[in-house]
Amino acid sequence: MSGFFTSRWVQRPDHVAETAGLPAGFRAAGVACGIKESGASDLGLLVCDEPQATSAARFTRSGVVAAPVLVCQERCDLAGLRAVVANSGNANAATGRRGLDAAAKMQGAAAIAAGVQESLVAVASTGVIGVQLPAEKAVGGLARAAGALSAQGDEDFAEAIRTTDAFAKRAALEVTLPSGTVRLAGQAKGAGMISPGFATLLCFVQTDARLSAETADLLLGVTVKRSFERISVDGQLSTNDTVILMASGASGVHVEPETPDELALGEALDALLRQLALLVVADGEGAARVGRVVVSGGHDLHVEHAARAVANSPLIKTALHGGDPNWGRIVQAVGMALPGTAPLPLDVHIEGVQVCSGGAVVPYDPQALDAAVAGPEVEYVVGLPGDGAETEVFFSDLGHRYIEINAEYTT
Amino acid sequence: MSGFFTSRWVQRPDHVAETAGLPAGFRAAGVACGIKESGASDLGLLVCDEPQATSAARFTRSGVVAAPVLVCQERCDLAGLRAVVANSGNANAATGRRGLDAAAKMQGAAAIAAGVQESLVAVASTGVIGVQLPAEKAVGGLARAAGALSAQGDEDFAEAIRTTDAFAKRAALEVTLPSGTVRLAGQAKGAGMISPGFATLLCFVQTDARLSAETADLLLGVTVKRSFERISVDGQLSTNDTVILMASGASGVHVEPETPDELALGEALDALLRQLALLVVADGEGAARVGRVVVSGGHDLHVEHAARAVANSPLIKTALHGGDPNWGRIVQAVGMALPGTAPLPLDVHIEGVQVCSGGAVVPYDPQALDAAVAGPEVEYVVGLPGDGAETEVFFSDLGHRYIEINAEYTT
Repeated sequence: MSGFFTSRWVQRPDHVAETAGLPAGFRAAGVACGIKESGASDLGLLVCDEPQATSAARFTRSGVVAAPVLVCQERCDLAGLRAVVANSGNANAATGRRGLDAAAKMQGAAAIAAGVQESLVAVASTGVIGVQLPAEKAVGGLARAAGALSAQGDEDFAEAIRTTDAFAKRAALEVTLPSGTVRLAGQAKGAGMISPGFATLLCFVQTDARLSAETADLLLGVTVKRSFERISVDGQLSTNDTVILMASGASGVHVEPETPDELALGEALDALLRQLALLVVADGEGAARVGRVVVSGGHDLHVEHAARAVANSPLIKTALHGGDPNWGRIVQAVGMALPGTAPLPLDVHIEGVQVCSGGAVVPYDPQALDAAVAGPEVEYVVGLPGDGAETEVFFSDLGHRYIEINAEYTT
Repeated sequence: MSGFFTSRWVQRPDHVAETAGLPAGFRAAGVACGIKESGASDLGLLVCDEPQATSAARFTRSGVVAAPVLVCQERCDLAGLRAVVANSGNANAATGRRGLDAAAKMQGAAAIAAGVQESLVAVASTGVIGVQLPAEKAVGGLARAAGALSAQGDEDFAEAIRTTDAFAKRAALEVTLPSGTVRLAGQAKGAGMISPGFATLLCFVQTDARLSAETADLLLGVTVKRSFERISVDGQLSTNDTVILMASGASGVHVEPETPDELALGEALDALLRQLALLVVADGEGAARVGRVVVSGGHDLHVEHAARAVANSPLIKTALHGGDPNWGRIVQAVGMALPGTAPLPLDVHIEGVQVCSGGAVVPYDPQALDAAVAGPEVEYVVGLPGDGAETEVFFSDLGHRYIEINAEYTT
């Protein structure tokens, strides 16, 4: 049971076990259609065979939104999606009317391939911004993808949505609810251009539980807030972020609002999305270590600004990379986030070692601190005056590989 | 006349010429007092010998403020400063009451060394945060610095305030005003922890013009807004930022409010501070290229947020480093800065090559674009809908050397 839940910051709920393959009612495939010049897999198709499927979705809040996001928002029934077509290698963003046409062509071809109405097909893209998407390649690939659809296709589908990801991010879970057993699967991509909303991220989640669209929306909203909205690789919100939850109902297990079933499914979804989010951070371009900053005290806006400032500080991220407990940079970042509050009597603990009390350095064992920041996960706890608010952000370090990936390639 | 004004973004005014040494009435020195373990120069003393001197100052807006900043703000007559003591190698920040005592000791010892009242001595520090400052070393160094004071001491003084700076940043100018000739000199430090307010920056400016304190404050406020407040190395506001303008009056040239003299002196000060700010950016830790983003249209808050988002994006900074014209990242950063405005019909030009019109890619010559981003200074122009507002931010690229400096050393 070690497999998927690898972070100490996510607990596998007792009623959740790992399994393989997609939940009942879903099939998926991934193929290479030629959008990526490397010839790697770049087109995924996901289909739900149950006509009564429900769904919910969340998208980037950027002012610059990719064509596939606009197509989803303007031309889809987001509460009843039956299919997803997703490509990597091209974001189809900043592509104007031609980009919208290309996204619509992908949607139309996927509707034929899946045998469902166009308005029930979501479109997602990830890759370089500002280059026209060769829709004909996607259309050609979809015919082959349709022939390859399988209940075990989640691995190929997850593969097809990777860009700079060093590894695919997916899980298949069996969830024991009071009313019966359901399955839950998720596939995510994301490594760079990850932040404040919920990341340059595509994430698709399937369950065979039967949910109302309202329940799907509620569960997705709450769990996205606790997962993809709490991570940062580089503080960069993408034009293409898309998270879609689809429920086939094929298990026959009804999950009604405000029941123990809903709670138990929510816990499983929460653990799934948090671990997927942590995998995105761990795979942050060039990342070697993951940090977690917890800020408490003050009020909601203060803790949010302080936590984001720490998570996005290149000084803290490089120190995390180097295993350097340079906690003065924590103090600096929090001070920057809260202008006009000086002198701010903040407390700082790193992995339980207190280094700062009431705004001033306290005696600490430097060797213990060095050891504390040498592990793969490092926790920073910041206390602000007052109490009542608390938040966390997970973040990757910043190392040479990020520079290599982003300075030397057009991604 | 090539020497100091090296950026195409700053014009040397016709009435400004380069010279050497401090303006009349000033002496300075720099010594090694042992705060830096390397034994490098780390303590600077600047003295104005004119009892009627006037001055103005600006400080960081961080919620976490270093002890020397608190001492300046709470115990100094900032309109009549006669001396500055500045150390590098230790920021004296997050050091609590002991840190305040150390800063006060430096102030007291500098007052004796300079022969002026304590309240007329500004204190400034830069270096590592969260380590107690060995005040006795500074006190010991001040006796030697007092003996070394000289009208040509600006070079040693500028040397003493360097931390990770690759080169000293200073200028000595002769300024021809309608009413006579005055001199103007400035010494700055800053390479990392540089942003939104006006940078981890120490900058000291001297003139022998006779100014009222109100005029000094007005001129400094306006020119800091156009220089140090428009730069970013890493988006990180420091705990120690300090800019001080001192006017000895020793030239006998009175600069009265709202006169051509004031305008001409203001132009010279503006050029001096802008070029010093650009040197700080050019010396951004590991920087190889300097970018300028100009955003126009919309309203003030929109252009400010968009310009900061571009200047602080690690994706854009790494692309600038690699000479990669990856303009999709400009579009992404602007979209992130202006959530909820989609679809945003923005225009993007890079070095005059238009790549995006109305939010969508336009045909361009990729070779011309590659050539445009290969130089030492790259200009990005972003047009938002509407007009009326415009701003600029200068920023450094992000390369391996930044990672090396910040991951491998406690700075």
